Amino acid sequence: MIANTPKPPYYSVIFTSTLNENHLGYDDTAYRVEELAQNQEGFLGIESARSEIGISVSYWKDLDSIRKWKAQTEHRVAQEKGKSIWYDQFKLRIAKVERDYSQNMDE
Amino acid sequence: MIANTPKPPYYSVIFTSTLNENHLGYDDTAYRVEELAQNQEGFLGIESARSEIGISVSYWKDLDSIRKWKAQTEHRVAQEKGKSIWYDQFKLRIAKVERDYSQNMDE
Repeated sequence: MIANTPKPPYYSVIFTSTLNENHLGYDDTAYRVEELAQNQEGFLGIESARSEIGISVSYWKDLDSIRKWKAQTEHRVAQEKGKSIWYDQFKLRIAKVERDYSQNMDE
Repeated sequence: MIANTPKPPYYSVIFTSTLNENHLGYDDTAYRVEELAQNQEGFLGIESARSEIGISVSYWKDLDSIRKWKAQTEHRVAQEKGKSIWYDQFKLRIAKVERDYSQNMDE
């Protein structure tokens, strides 16, 4: 779903990846990592989609929250598994959300 | 593909959307809009994926490039069609990329 984030400014982590052919266990871990993120201090929301590439954008209160999330133990283990097993390529960008605009056509 | 962007800082437009059941013509327009963006001044790259939601992140040299892209005539027409026909909901965030990190496992 589209993340219901507060008024900017806040931070985003834009994580883009392509997977190897061997992605046994990837979906379960990705699900678990999203669950962990949601319980992390400073977490504001997450949006994920995958077709040819996967894009996962998580939103955070500040850079300190992102630093702590990166260092979270179970998340670190998942990051290492990602690098050694699942990802063919990835790119992570940290970006400060300055403005937003949204519309819900049902309203 | 993962966008090969230059060293930060630069800007990103994170566009997240859900589609209505009627998305006749959507794919063609989305493709055309990406093509237009690529010819726009200040364009640095784009990453798109769609599963339950669609996420499209485009990267730009600066805020002025984003302003001009938003106002580009054919893009404006597509935006209006999106709002009136295709999108159920959308959210657009403008974020300044401050850092990035990438890895290609083949290297």
